[in-house]
Amino acid sequence: MHAYRSHTCGDLTAANAGETVRLSGWVHRVRDHGGVLFVDLRDHYGMTQVLADSDSPVFATMEKLRAETVIRIDGRVKLRDASLVNPKLPTGEIEVYATDLEVLGPSDELPLPIFGDLDYPEETRLTYRFLDLRRESLHNNIMLRSKVIRSLRNRMWDTGFTEFQTPIITASSPEGARDFLVPSRLHPGKFYALPQAPQQFKQLIMVAGFDRYFQIAPCFRDEDPRADRSPTDFYQLDLEMSFVEQEDVFAAIQPVIQGLFEEFGGGRAVDADWPRIPYAVSMQKYGSDKPDLRNPIEMQDVSDHFRGSGFGIFAKLLEQDGTEVRAIPAPTGGSRKFADRMNAYAQKEGLPGMGYIFWRKAEDGSTEAAGPIAKALGAEPTEAIRAQLGLGEGDAAFFLGGKPEHFEAVAGRARNEIGRELGLTDENQFKFAWIVDFPMYEKTDDGKIDFSHNPFSMPQGGLDALNGDPLTVKGYQYDLACNGYELISGAIRNHKPEIMFKAFELAGYPASEVEKRFGGMVKAFRYGAPPHGGCAAGIDRIVMLLADEQNIREVIMFPMNQRAEDLMMGAPSEPLNEQLRELRLRVLPKE
Amino acid sequence: MHAYRSHTCGDLTAANAGETVRLSGWVHRVRDHGGVLFVDLRDHYGMTQVLADSDSPVFATMEKLRAETVIRIDGRVKLRDASLVNPKLPTGEIEVYATDLEVLGPSDELPLPIFGDLDYPEETRLTYRFLDLRRESLHNNIMLRSKVIRSLRNRMWDTGFTEFQTPIITASSPEGARDFLVPSRLHPGKFYALPQAPQQFKQLIMVAGFDRYFQIAPCFRDEDPRADRSPTDFYQLDLEMSFVEQEDVFAAIQPVIQGLFEEFGGGRAVDADWPRIPYAVSMQKYGSDKPDLRNPIEMQDVSDHFRGSGFGIFAKLLEQDGTEVRAIPAPTGGSRKFADRMNAYAQKEGLPGMGYIFWRKAEDGSTEAAGPIAKALGAEPTEAIRAQLGLGEGDAAFFLGGKPEHFEAVAGRARNEIGRELGLTDENQFKFAWIVDFPMYEKTDDGKIDFSHNPFSMPQGGLDALNGDPLTVKGYQYDLACNGYELISGAIRNHKPEIMFKAFELAGYPASEVEKRFGGMVKAFRYGAPPHGGCAAGIDRIVMLLADEQNIREVIMFPMNQRAEDLMMGAPSEPLNEQLRELRLRVLPKE
Repeated sequence: MHAYRSHTCGDLTAANAGETVRLSGWVHRVRDHGGVLFVDLRDHYGMTQVLADSDSPVFATMEKLRAETVIRIDGRVKLRDASLVNPKLPTGEIEVYATDLEVLGPSDELPLPIFGDLDYPEETRLTYRFLDLRRESLHNNIMLRSKVIRSLRNRMWDTGFTEFQTPIITASSPEGARDFLVPSRLHPGKFYALPQAPQQFKQLIMVAGFDRYFQIAPCFRDEDPRADRSPTDFYQLDLEMSFVEQEDVFAAIQPVIQGLFEEFGGGRAVDADWPRIPYAVSMQKYGSDKPDLRNPIEMQDVSDHFRGSGFGIFAKLLEQDGTEVRAIPAPTGGSRKFADRMNAYAQKEGLPGMGYIFWRKAEDGSTEAAGPIAKALGAEPTEAIRAQLGLGEGDAAFFLGGKPEHFEAVAGRARNEIGRELGLTDENQFKFAWIVDFPMYEKTDDGKIDFSHNPFSMPQGGLDALNGDPLTVKGYQYDLACNGYELISGAIRNHKPEIMFKAFELAGYPASEVEKRFGGMVKAFRYGAPPHGGCAAGIDRIVMLLADEQNIREVIMFPMNQRAEDLMMGAPSEPLNEQLRELRLRVLPKE
Repeated sequence: MHAYRSHTCGDLTAANAGETVRLSGWVHRVRDHGGVLFVDLRDHYGMTQVLADSDSPVFATMEKLRAETVIRIDGRVKLRDASLVNPKLPTGEIEVYATDLEVLGPSDELPLPIFGDLDYPEETRLTYRFLDLRRESLHNNIMLRSKVIRSLRNRMWDTGFTEFQTPIITASSPEGARDFLVPSRLHPGKFYALPQAPQQFKQLIMVAGFDRYFQIAPCFRDEDPRADRSPTDFYQLDLEMSFVEQEDVFAAIQPVIQGLFEEFGGGRAVDADWPRIPYAVSMQKYGSDKPDLRNPIEMQDVSDHFRGSGFGIFAKLLEQDGTEVRAIPAPTGGSRKFADRMNAYAQKEGLPGMGYIFWRKAEDGSTEAAGPIAKALGAEPTEAIRAQLGLGEGDAAFFLGGKPEHFEAVAGRARNEIGRELGLTDENQFKFAWIVDFPMYEKTDDGKIDFSHNPFSMPQGGLDALNGDPLTVKGYQYDLACNGYELISGAIRNHKPEIMFKAFELAGYPASEVEKRFGGMVKAFRYGAPPHGGCAAGIDRIVMLLADEQNIREVIMFPMNQRAEDLMMGAPSEPLNEQLRELRLRVLPKE
């Protein structure tokens, strides 16, 4: 017989009754039923009930087993009494009467129990990650992640893409975040960088004549701590295609993502209709460039009804250039209690408040508009607003006014809140949309023009467009929104050096700077570059959505904590003096 | 019609004759046949012949096309005259008469031509890697590599393994080579390291209860330049299994590797019989722990025939302890000319020479032994040697004497040379062997005891064995040899802390040092560690064997040069002062 097992802990069924078997695994739990000991023996594949009574030669050893000890047992498979069958367990029809037992790996007292659902501080969980990973939900998440990545790979191959690895020790690739540097020993004083993304490499792969590239790519960014992201690295499904336009990229990736969500969505509906929503429209209707379309609420511009109206605050506001009053319709939200709650929400978000109208049944049985705005505005404009928003008795509308860039984000969050509170958002589905026509440039706080997203995107209208007002130029740049998250970001690339130099010039980068920062790629574009484009999908985010987890560390095997420390391995740590000497580096004292 | 193509350059056949098509690709070559221009248009998928005569509106543009310009053409598919059909090209039955042409990506004068097989200096090839990659053989190698990795992944999944990514930014994992360090900005003065291998992580994955792990894993080692390896990183198929013994690992990986070689070996025979050869036997028979078994020659100990014999050099040598005379039989090598050539080979390798006997037909028709050794040794011992080695007329034997550790490596290389020169080595096959029973320890040059291979291996005989002479302890440590290369290395791990501390103590590492260097793993072993083992296969090496390439840079998309520089991207490079300031580092001046 095999030294450790004839079966796994998930194998045995009634069909094995009477067999002599060997199992190995972890002692999940020991129960003492007065003279009979039960051990739930656990391995990667499942759990099997092992028992011994005082006649068994292993009784004494089993009695002293600590949880999480690794043991090997030999025994006979017995059918359980019908009343004791556990239908939730694949091995629930049987138990194994132990005749031999060997401790393969003893366990000290546990800092973190595996059995049970007790919550533990994250520091403990990360320090003893190898224990935390034995817990069922985390184990399942990590298995899910692996299967998701496998499925993505197969789907990409099946769609005609080829996976290539791009260098991890490479040159700095400025993508807006900080690089991790790697000092060179052979060239002291010089540094490599870990890639923030394989952006330049994937474009070079296209220039090199490979047609459809993908990679499950590790990306490295030296980020400041933030709750919801890894402070060091993340994985993306990175892809690039030659001889394509925007719609070709959409056509390539939609079946991959849709199929993936159908496969792993746990029965949640996966919408097959992926609308294209221009960035400006998305901001206007949803207050976000990653709208949650499970929520049916669409905001509307209702400025006309307030202009010169009796509601002085908005009437006055609208006299300023670039202002607007926007309504968030809230079907079924027509109560003062709800309206007040949302108003308080807006105040918590830093706004002075959020005006509202709600419609209720009047004493005479008719529908009446209630709330201070309705009163100030008067019957006719109030009715016009109701008609425009398609609302009726029992509904409400909330109003935000000012310059859209100042209130849009809060409006978007209020929309989410309203949809969730009123149960309008169907949580049980995945809804996607391509957000398109992103502006190429934006004005920074200090009044300069800078790229608003990816500087490598092709401007719509090409070189001509760049000779006008930069702030009106749109890029062939797109995001995929899903349930309020950005899942994918991509672009058709600027493969023409002259347009690229002009695009960077507008953002204040002279040609010399472009050559210096993106020299490898710019040089390549001079030797026959094909039109190309692609995108990248965030794998951690996808797994979080599928696993319904809010914390990125629940879907990563060995994550850093939020201070970018690996508590299990003890990283980062002090280097050896010899290492620093070889690198010709000195650590400066704290200032 | 699509903006860039209705078909790829590999699509069109006689079935498309008469169709109007659109193609995009690179101008591989332009030929002017007096009034008719032919363009070989190339993309990832193939090559299509495009033509234009002086009636074509695109003639003038086409005439001026520089090689490697990216163009889009519209045209009509025409059957070629039967005499002009190119059966070697999938599109060889047709050509496309161009009616429209657009330059999508112009090309400057090329530093490196794509058409033709001219060899170029590696510096040029690496600087313009995006051009070099357009060449057919390199393009094919990179595609092969990708397909090999895909096949490995599928085979591993099909065998019940799950792929997990382990951290790339992590703690130092001393594996015998130098770490690449990554300074931490959030913790100035502390450093992360890039993993030399996921060794500790994969063992922790087993402790965490996952049963069969694999990963196509990037490994990072700051190596000194050597021709035949990457100076920064390499990829391995890394795997680990719980509740296994050595033979279980062999049984899991053999079908994967064998199937892979059958799939991509280009028809070369793949031996299914993988013998287990103890390390000591391998050194004795083949002078190597990675023997090329395509070569049938097996060396033999012939000391007895020389002990006290008339051949004084060896007779005297054998009076010293630990010496031996070994014979390399060379069937069909029985000529003075060949014997002299091999003797010269040995001298080139730094030995005083290599004695020989060869057997020829004597004038009387009988078989006679020739050469100085035979003469000095006398007829009877010479005949005994011939009989032991199973040689006859027309064969030879070469002799090396001394302490095996001093001559074994040269003997092994001489064996290779003899096999190749005499055509005994069948180049057209892959032959594998598991080399097992590696010694755990070796004596270093300064007389200390150190691990000879992986310190994490379980010593055969467990704790008891470690209480004897360390140099006799064997480990559950194994390599897979293929055609003279080490393809795989692995071990059953030492999962018991007490044995681990003892094993390290013998190599001079106190417990505190073990805790410091491998703390994460040692701690984990105290909370229920399963017996486990695994191995890692070198992917670059496998692809080199399959592609029949000698240079690792021929199977990597974007390799470093031998000085660890990325000539295309310009890495490593000077950091910005601001970056160093954030890391609190100073670069010291050269001493």
